[in-house]
This record gives sequence, C-alpha cells and structure tokens, in this order.
Amino acid sequence: MSLSDRLTGVIPPLCTPLTPDGEVDTASLIRLVDHLTGAGVDGLFVLGSTSEAAFLTDRMRRTVTETVTAHVGGAVPVLAGAIDMTTPRVLDHARTALKAGADGIVATAPFYTRTHPAEIDRHFRLLAQETGAPVLAYDLPVAVHTKLSPDTVLALAADGVLAGIKDSSGDHDGLRQVIMARVPRFSVLTGSELLVDAALMMGADGVVPGFGNVDPAGYVRIVRYCAAGDWAAARAEQERLCSAFSIVHEGSPTRMGRGSAAIGAFKQALRLLGVIDHATTAEPQIPLSEAETDRVATHLTAAGLLR
Amino acid sequence: MSLSDRLTGVIPPLCTPLTPDGEVDTASLIRLVDHLTGAGVDGLFVLGSTSEAAFLTDRMRRTVTETVTAHVGGAVPVLAGAIDMTTPRVLDHARTALKAGADGIVATAPFYTRTHPAEIDRHFRLLAQETGAPVLAYDLPVAVHTKLSPDTVLALAADGVLAGIKDSSGDHDGLRQVIMARVPRFSVLTGSELLVDAALMMGADGVVPGFGNVDPAGYVRIVRYCAAGDWAAARAEQERLCSAFSIVHEGSPTRMGRGSAAIGAFKQALRLLGVIDHATTAEPQIPLSEAETDRVATHLTAAGLLR
Amino acid sequence: MSLSDRLTGVIPPLCTPLTPDGEVDTASLIRLVDHLTGAGVDGLFVLGSTSEAAFLTDRMRRTVTETVTAHVGGAVPVLAGAIDMTTPRVLDHARTALKAGADGIVATAPFYTRTHPAEIDRHFRLLAQETGAPVLAYDLPVAVHTKLSPDTVLALAADGVLAGIKDSSGDHDGLRQVIMARVPRFSVLTGSELLVDAALMMGADGVVPGFGNVDPAGYVRIVRYCAAGDWAAARAEQERLCSAFSIVHEGSPTRMGRGSAAIGAFKQALRLLGVIDHATTAEPQIPLSEAETDRVATHLTAAGLLR
Amino acid sequence: MSLSDRLTGVIPPLCTPLTPDGEVDTASLIRLVDHLTGAGVDGLFVLGSTSEAAFLTDRMRRTVTETVTAHVGGAVPVLAGAIDMTTPRVLDHARTALKAGADGIVATAPFYTRTHPAEIDRHFRLLAQETGAPVLAYDLPVAVHTKLSPDTVLALAADGVLAGIKDSSGDHDGLRQVIMARVPRFSVLTGSELLVDAALMMGADGVVPGFGNVDPAGYVRIVRYCAAGDWAAARAEQERLCSAFSIVHEGSPTRMGRGSAAIGAFKQALRLLGVIDHATTAEPQIPLSEAETDRVATHLTAAGLLR
Repeated sequence: MSLSDRLTGVIPPLCTPLTPDGEVDTASLIRLVDHLTGAGVDGLFVLGSTSEAAFLTDRMRRTVTETVTAHVGGAVPVLAGAIDMTTPRVLDHARTALKAGADGIVATAPFYTRTHPAEIDRHFRLLAQETGAPVLAYDLPVAVHTKLSPDTVLALAADGVLAGIKDSSGDHDGLRQVIMARVPRFSVLTGSELLVDAALMMGADGVVPGFGNVDPAGYVRIVRYCAAGDWAAARAEQERLCSAFSIVHEGSPTRMGRGSAAIGAFKQALRLLGVIDHATTAEPQIPLSEAETDRVATHLTAAGLLR
Repeated sequence: MSLSDRLTGVIPPLCTPLTPDGEVDTASLIRLVDHLTGAGVDGLFVLGSTSEAAFLTDRMRRTVTETVTAHVGGAVPVLAGAIDMTTPRVLDHARTALKAGADGIVATAPFYTRTHPAEIDRHFRLLAQETGAPVLAYDLPVAVHTKLSPDTVLALAADGVLAGIKDSSGDHDGLRQVIMARVPRFSVLTGSELLVDAALMMGADGVVPGFGNVDPAGYVRIVRYCAAGDWAAARAEQERLCSAFSIVHEGSPTRMGRGSAAIGAFKQALRLLGVIDHATTAEPQIPLSEAETDRVATHLTAAGLLR
Repeated sequence: MSLSDRLTGVIPPLCTPLTPDGEVDTASLIRLVDHLTGAGVDGLFVLGSTSEAAFLTDRMRRTVTETVTAHVGGAVPVLAGAIDMTTPRVLDHARTALKAGADGIVATAPFYTRTHPAEIDRHFRLLAQETGAPVLAYDLPVAVHTKLSPDTVLALAADGVLAGIKDSSGDHDGLRQVIMARVPRFSVLTGSELLVDAALMMGADGVVPGFGNVDPAGYVRIVRYCAAGDWAAARAEQERLCSAFSIVHEGSPTRMGRGSAAIGAFKQALRLLGVIDHATTAEPQIPLSEAETDRVATHLTAAGLLR
Repeated sequence: MSLSDRLTGVIPPLCTPLTPDGEVDTASLIRLVDHLTGAGVDGLFVLGSTSEAAFLTDRMRRTVTETVTAHVGGAVPVLAGAIDMTTPRVLDHARTALKAGADGIVATAPFYTRTHPAEIDRHFRLLAQETGAPVLAYDLPVAVHTKLSPDTVLALAADGVLAGIKDSSGDHDGLRQVIMARVPRFSVLTGSELLVDAALMMGADGVVPGFGNVDPAGYVRIVRYCAAGDWAAARAEQERLCSAFSIVHEGSPTRMGRGSAAIGAFKQALRLLGVIDHATTAEPQIPLSEAETDRVATHLTAAGLLR
C-alpha cells in the first residue's frame, strides 16, 4: 500500500459545483480540478464535508468520483469520502468509490448512533478488511459528535488499519500526540486551515484545507516555506489566508447555518474567480444574498485574488 | 390526508430481525408484526432508530418496508423512517418507502451538517411538497444533535406540512407546549416509553415505544386505562414496564454503546420469547454476552413475560 | 431529622428583591414571604437560582436568610441554598445559613471543576457529616453541567445522607426512577414548574416552582387537585400556569441571557402585583425594557392575576 | 498602568500546597515561589484553576495572595484569580486580592448562570471600572461552559478594559484571531501547555503553564529558543515536556476526576522534587494511590527531573 507515502502536502477537499437545478456540474468540476492541480496541490479529496457529501445522493456521489478520477488520470492521488452513519452503509459507498477509481477512502466514526470506542475500532477494522484499500480516519466532531481519541487512532495506525488521519477536530493537543508517535506509513493531515504553519511546525504531513479550493497556491506556498524552514514567511502567508478566509463569515448567522455560509462563500468565490459556473448549494441550505456576495468579492480583492 | 386521524395509541418502532450473516430475516420480521398486531397495537413504525435504520443498507431498508406492508395489508397504518443526513438523501429514501407501500414518512432534521432553524423548516416543507405524503417529524436530539423547537414544529403543523411528531427528545416542557396548541389533524406521539401515563395525561395522542417490541400488550393496557381515566392503574402498569425495561442496562457500558445495549436486549428478549430466531445486531455493534443475556431473561421472568 | 416529613407540597424558591442600588430590599422580601405563606405554601427556599444566589455577596446572602427565618418564625420550614463550587466553600455557606436559622441546606454537585461521581458522593457525605443538618441535593445541570445520576442520589438517600432532592434536571425518566425507589424519609421535589401535575401523578412529594413567586395559589391548587385525584382539574390549572409562565420569554434573547429574562420577568410581575418595590436584578444582568414589561403585564392580566 | 508591558514569557499558575488537614502550607508555598522564580519565570499567577481556587475558602485565598506577594516583594508581577460566579462576588475577591498586594486580576466570564455576550461584556467593564486595576480575561470553557468569543475579547481590549487574556480554551483559531489584531498594551497568554512553541510562533506573548510548577526551566527554555528563532530546539523541548506531562494521566479515570488527577500529579511531583511537604489536595478530590504516585516518579525520572 504505497498511498500513504504520497499523502503529504496540500490535498484540498473539492467543492462540488452544482447546476441551478441541483445536479452535478461536471464541466465546472473539471475546471476546479485543473484550478487545483495547476496550483501544484499534492492530491485531491472528493466527497468530504466541504464537498457537500452529506447532501449528495448516491447517484451524484458516483458522478463526482468518476468525473474526477477520469480527468486526473492518476497524476495525483484521489481520496473519496464514504460519509454515512455506520459500517454497512459506509462499505456500500466505499465500494462504489473504489470502483469509480478512488485511490483511498476517508471515513468518520459512526454517527447518529451512540457508539462505544470499541465499536469505533471495530468499524475501521471492518472497513479496511472488507475494502482492502487505504482507509483514512476523518475526525470531525462538529459533525460526528464523537472525538476520535489519539489512543484509538494510534492503535489502528500501529496495526496498519489506517493509512492516515484527517484531523478537523481542532484538538491540537491530540494532533500533537498523534504526530509524536511517529507511526511509519501513516499520514497525519490537518483540516485546520487557519493553523497550517503551526501544524507543519509540529510535524504534520499535510493539510486538507477547504479554503484551498479558493486559493490553492497560498497553501502550496506555506508548505514550501515550512519545508525550507522559513517560518516567518509561512506565518505571513498563513495570516494572509486567515484574512481572506473571512469570506465564510459574510453569510448572516441570523439566516443560515455556519456550513451553508462557508460553502456558499467558497462557491461564490470560485464563481467570481471564473472557475465554476454557478454558486448553487444543495437543499436545504440557504444561499448567500447579493450583498453578502459583494462582500465576499471585496475580501477576495483585498487578498489579491480578484482584480 | 386521513392518516393523522388514525395516528393514536400504540405504534411500536419495529426491531429489524437479522440472520447471523447480517441479512434481513423476513420470516422473523413477519412473526414480529403478528406479535404486535396480535396485541392490539394501532400502527407500526419501520426503519426508526430502534429498527437499526442507521445500520441498514438501502437494499435492506426496502426489504423491510415491502415485507411489512405486504403482510399487514392495510390493517393498521405503517410509517417508515427516512433516516438520512439532508433533504436530497431523505427524499430518495422517502420515495422508495412510499413505493414499497408505506402510509407515511418519519424524518428527522438534517444531521451531520450544522443547520439553521430556517433550513430545518425548509427541509420539512420540501419533504412534504416533493412526496405529497404525510410527513411526521422525528425529534431525537441524542442522534440528530439538534432539538426541534416547539415554535418550528407548530409553524409546520399549522401550515399542514407535518402530520405529526414523534417526540423522543425527553423535553416534556416542549412536548406540553406542542400539545397545548391543539393543532387539528396533527398527531403528538411520545417516544418516552417510561413516561407514557404522564404524556397521555397531558394530552398526547399516542406512543412509539421501543420496548413495545417486547411487551406490546403492556402499552396497549396503559392507553386503555388512560382513556378510561384510571390513572392509578395506568401508573402501576407503567411502573411494571419501567422495571422490565431495565433489560437495556444489562449490556455493559464498559464494552458497548448504549444503543447496542438497548437494541441487543430487545432482540435477545424477542428471541427468548420465541418471536424472532436470532438476536444478531448489525455491525459494528457489540452483542450482549451470555451472562448479560441470562440477566435479560431474569428481568423478563420477573415482569411476567417469560416463564 | 424530622424535616423531610414536612417537605411536601409547594416550596417556592424566593426571588431576592433588590433596591435600585443593588442591596437586599428587606421590606419587600418580607412582603414576598407574606404573599407566599398567605397563599398556603408548605415551605420556603431562599438562596436558590431563582433567588439570584449566584449574584449575591456573602453579606447579602446572610441578610436574606436572617430576614426570612426571623419573619417566618418556624411557621413553615425554610431551606437555604449553599451555592458554591466545592465542599469547603459550600460548607462555609451552609454553616452561615444554619446559624441564621435555616432548617436545611440545598446544595448542588461541585461545579467549575470536573468532578467524578465518587467525588460527588464524597461531597454530599461531607456536607451532611460536617453540618449535621438536613441536606437536599439540587440537580440543575443547566447551571452545574453535571447530571446527578439516579444511582448516586439513591445510594446517598438510602444511607440517610440526603433528606431529599430538588430535581430541576428536566430528566423525567430519572425522576421516575428516584420516585419508584420509594426511599423512606426522603423527599422528591420537582423543579419543573410546567409539569407539576405529571410529576405528582408519578408520585413526587412536592414542587419548587420559580413561577410560584408570582402565582403561589395556582401551585397550591394543583397540589390539592392531585391529592383529591382530580387530574383533569390539575391539568387545567397547570395549563393556565403554563400560559402565564410565558412572561419569561418576553425579555429579548438578542439582548439578554435566558436567566436574566426569567428573573427579570418574575420581579417585574411581583412589582406589578404590588408585592415588591423594585424589579432591579443583580449585575451583570440586563433588565427588561419598558415594552417587554408591558407585555409581562398583558400576560398577567390574561391569567387573571392582574386587573 | 504598566503591567501589560511586563506580561510576557512564563507566568505559571501556582499550585496551592496544603497541610494534611487542608490548610494552606505557607512554608511550602514560599519554597514553590523560590522554585519558580529561581528558574527565571517572568511572573506568577495565584488562585487560578491549577491553584485549586475553586476549593479554597475566602480565608485561604487571602492567605495565599498575602504570602506570595510578601515573599516576592515586587520582583516579578503577581496576578491573582478572582474566581466566582458573577460580578458582585468577583468584585469582592478582586478587592481582597488587590489589598493583599496583587498587581492584577484574572477573571472568567460569569458561570453557573446563563449569560448573554452583552452581559459578559458588561461584567468585564464593571470589573475594570470598580477595581481600577489591570484585568485579564480567563477563557476556560471546560470550567465556565462559555467560550469568550474573539470579537468580545477584542472589543474589550480595544477599549482598554482588558490588559490581557489567558486563553485556555484550546481554540487556536480564536487565539490566532486575537493575536492577529495586535492590540497595543494587551497581552495574549496561552494556557495550552503542550503547544507553547506553536503559540509563540503565531505571536503569543507568553504562557501560563500548569506543568510549569513542576518544570519551570523547561518553559523558560522554550521561550528563549523561540525568541532566538530556533524552532527546532523549541519543538524538541516542548516534546520533552509533553512526554513528562503524561503524569496527569496516571490518576485512574475510573476513580477520580480529570482535574483531581492533574493537580494530584503536579503536587506529588512537587513533593517528590522536594519543593513542597505534602501532596494533599482539597475536598472532595480523590488523591492518587501509591502505585499511581510511583508511576508519576517514573515519568519524572525519564524526563530528567528526578534522579
């Protein structure tokens, strides 16, 4: 299993462009892939939370994976989320994604159900065993409402069950504990897109930044600065990205959820940058207003992304 | 839409019997239906949380609904859970269930995602509009991690969007508020199986008791006592059921999740009572041990259910 | 210890009237005591959450207890909250309250700290042992962020450590479990002021209703109806009180906390009823506006409390 | 008010040594002060969470502050926690601490009560106004159950209300936002003792490390390495401290709270190092067993702290 050797650097979780009637916009999706690979990213992650995987039907999910793997043609690894509640349902998604050409699977602990750590352990072991593919754990307590404990993750890593982890928990104590174990052939990726310099300084292998859809080049630069030991430059670049990231706060919290505001802003930004055709988000998410979209544009201009 | 007129009384959420290799055991499922209808229940609810809906693949879900509706033949209404993360995915399940003969759909607010109340409102309106079928809201914060506010529910009820609510939130202040609004053609069902006498006293229309799989006759008796104004008898019967319900605490919390312990106990009880053939639960749930199962049997004997 | 024999019926948690400059308004406090005992309540609870105990300095707390016990003169039992973070600090408050004439102490589990159930158990045992006075456990997870488990409570009750519990947890399954244990000389009091009929039907001994400051006679009536087995009358009276209780929602959630809104509304109501002189609440709570106060008055009129 | 100019570097939250009967052990406390200042720390913080402030009576709190300020004699600034539920009670503690010689006050948002952001804002403004002393906000959601939002903190900082923040929230996105605002005369201190290198790299002014009681020299070294731009050395020193910090996990979670385990381990370590005489912790905390204490010693030896 050579995937984990390659899982370093910037691996953005792709937005899923939609047509106005809610179908996958494959032409825009292909342009988004080119936008990212052209900036030098090291891998692609489809069907994650930023991809609105929770909102896509099975049919749409398959279309996304097939479109991306076909277009990428192996140039960079493609990871696919298999986001569902429990082992049997996750396995169905995982098999579909692997058949569609994904190089590895990203799965959370069970959710909706109340699961014991021993059952979470069993879940990941069954996923690895039944698929025979590289499996990355996705730690996203804001969605899953369970935190993967470092002990659970490291036991699975040591046994070769997991090829890596995408840590979007915000728990940097735990992230450090996982990094310090230095498990061979195990990739530690952070999903904390505002703290990439800090995570790389601690020894993380890479980053899965939602905002990397909008500014992939910025994240590629941070990784390069860190590799060169230029921490001041890394920090300055990260701070620039933090400021630009404010686009996610423009969608009003009195009208829409925080997920809708973030994904809506990413999609409006990609539309403004000419990468995708429509900023449509899936139901029942409420879209950004025109005024909110204008403020997204202002941020992009300030960050030097839009003229 | 005449369903809500009939949604009163005892409507148990059916366990889903599985074969040892994890497939739906349709013969046992049919015997379970007979066990419940024979005890005089007023409706059936398939594919809820007690049904392990979160663990069943799409194929298995369809089998369950088809098996039950075919066997029931309209004798009592059959509600089907459409348990998934967001509107587009819930709609897929809802359409399948309605095609398979379900009389109405039970759906939660979106989960996994972070949703605004306005988006929850939109979610239920889209479900009702797109399916044209009776939709019940399922309030289960322990799984969904959102509480449906009485204001949201009552607005949807007043507009005819919802045919009822299954309230498993444990928030009896909120339940009372919904009851006190006395919305016509709107069923208020409690999922609090240990507080049925109290809920009916407050004016609830019925109950969806997981433990009703094991002792449907007990719940039917409570409803009759309450209807007759014999609150002392209702309380005594409820207290007997509360004691018997202790079977859910036998699965050790050091080894398994609370959901696994409850569903494992229900299934072992149904097996001991001769209703289903196997107590198999879906992956990655950890099953009850032999000693734990023996203690389940002891409770059933004490409750007069097993000789 | 004869206190628990008398701890039944209606035991309101007294508001603490304040002067405009934030001192205890003892004249108003005495009128409030008369308002309550005149309506036939069975006991008084000072320095609880509704009393703004969390906001009162030690000096003010002592004034409250001394004023109330001196005025009541043993006519009904007076319980005093000893609200603080841990055993040594709670003990200081408990000793002061007992010296000031309180008949028993009400204490929560430790808060601010992260405490193990064994430490909670030890906490209550030390309180009972060191004070030699009746101790009631106060279960208020919304403030304490720990739920007292029925097992912990029942073990302490069986050992004679606790004289009772004030259950404001909203967990009616747990309340029922505690009631069903039928521990002698142990009072089960509910703090759920909107569900008194249901709690009494299940067998609770009494109620500690914050809204009982405003309408003590209503709660006294519910208790009488329940004792007489007239559940329909109890429910009707409870529903009337639920409607009147809406005063707590008038303080805007965009401007103030839910506690400030509730206590502010109780105090404005008491002022409008002529019981206390000022509706002042303690810092840093934000007071109700004039328009919000007008709507409080409207509710009171609708409930037949204000002409 | 020049305090904030000096609030940089290492400012440990002092443990409070206790005699076996639970009184403040002032001789040990003085030795602890010497242990810390001898290692070159930049300030001292008494009566924080690590100090068991939540467990100390008012009398004991005063003894602590007086003992430390008298012994330090102004050599380094001494901050004092004023830990209580609301403004009036916090003000009482603040006045006592300032009278006892503290250079500044550290206060949390209100707790136990449910407070609105506008009330939190009001709370800190009243504290600053009434005391006239430097006030630092203490962000500790694990205890307070409210997160101080960066927007709230920055508004108070910009208005000169706050002299700084001790951020123990674990929210490094928020920490970064506060740092990036670069408010003059406002100290940003992290309480995340396992991430000091990362926090300093991002621009934090200093650290308040509980484990700094045990190994103050280690934290002083990290600060020096970071100031010199030697991030590799800083990271290596931090990783050594992370390993040694494992002492906090030796107290069994089946027997005691996580706070008790951490503070018990710190105190056992200080006793083993000969700094304090007794490892006594306050009631109702459960102490470490002998076997657990032996494992604490093993960690200390491995970290080169104990021979």
